[in-house]
Amino acid sequence: MHFPTPPENKQELEFGTIFSPKFGEDGLLTAIVTDFQTGDLLMVAHMNPEALQKTLETNQGWFFSRSRNTLWLKGETSGNVLNIKEIRTDCDQDAIWLKVQIAGSGAACHTGETSCFYRAVRVSDDHIVLQSD
Amino acid sequence: MHFPTPPENKQELEFGTIFSPKFGEDGLLTAIVTDFQTGDLLMVAHMNPEALQKTLETNQGWFFSRSRNTLWLKGETSGNVLNIKEIRTDCDQDAIWLKVQIAGSGAACHTGETSCFYRAVRVSDDHIVLQSD
Repeated sequence: MHFPTPPENKQELEFGTIFSPKFGEDGLLTAIVTDFQTGDLLMVAHMNPEALQKTLETNQGWFFSRSRNTLWLKGETSGNVLNIKEIRTDCDQDAIWLKVQIAGSGAACHTGETSCFYRAVRVSDDHIVLQSD
Repeated sequence: MHFPTPPENKQELEFGTIFSPKFGEDGLLTAIVTDFQTGDLLMVAHMNPEALQKTLETNQGWFFSRSRNTLWLKGETSGNVLNIKEIRTDCDQDAIWLKVQIAGSGAACHTGETSCFYRAVRVSDDHIVLQSD
């Protein structure tokens, strides 16, 4: 599987039918994962070309860990793999949206929470606090 | 407004109440924007500390443009500002989720589309194509 170089032509990039993902200076794309049924945002991760290729080939979510500097299959150890129902990309093709059904316990977060976004950021005057809810 | 340095203690980072956003090596956080009512993913952008600070202060979406190397208020010219209803962060605090109500025409994308993710990535064998739907 080969990813073509993004076209210089903006019209082509934004309205064309050719998938030409634009990896950043760090070689990565941002990947957004939502629950196919509830629409909830589950996690945000990153993909290098190999992770994207494996994701497209296997229909499961593969990512590149910046902290561990390695390719990983989400759910490889937990069993909570991301079975992909739909993939979308954005106008400039530098982000990927995976709509998934999670296997196993259904937790997307390594903490055991369904979503990694289990805390709200609440602001009052100059005071900011995180609240789990 | 001051953002504290992320704690070394993982438990504190992941379960604490202190908001200590973890900006990447490029100095940026990933910001995910969804529609408060429909839950749809609208756009993905990036924030430097100043953009995050302005977002928290004004309750509207400010970002840092990597291509233009500048701070921008989403909707400054179009009028489609992002009025924030809720802000959430993830386990390791390196991503921000904004649930918004868009003003103006309601389009989040500069192309005029409601969402930047107006194309699906369809795979069949080794052939990949983008489809607007």
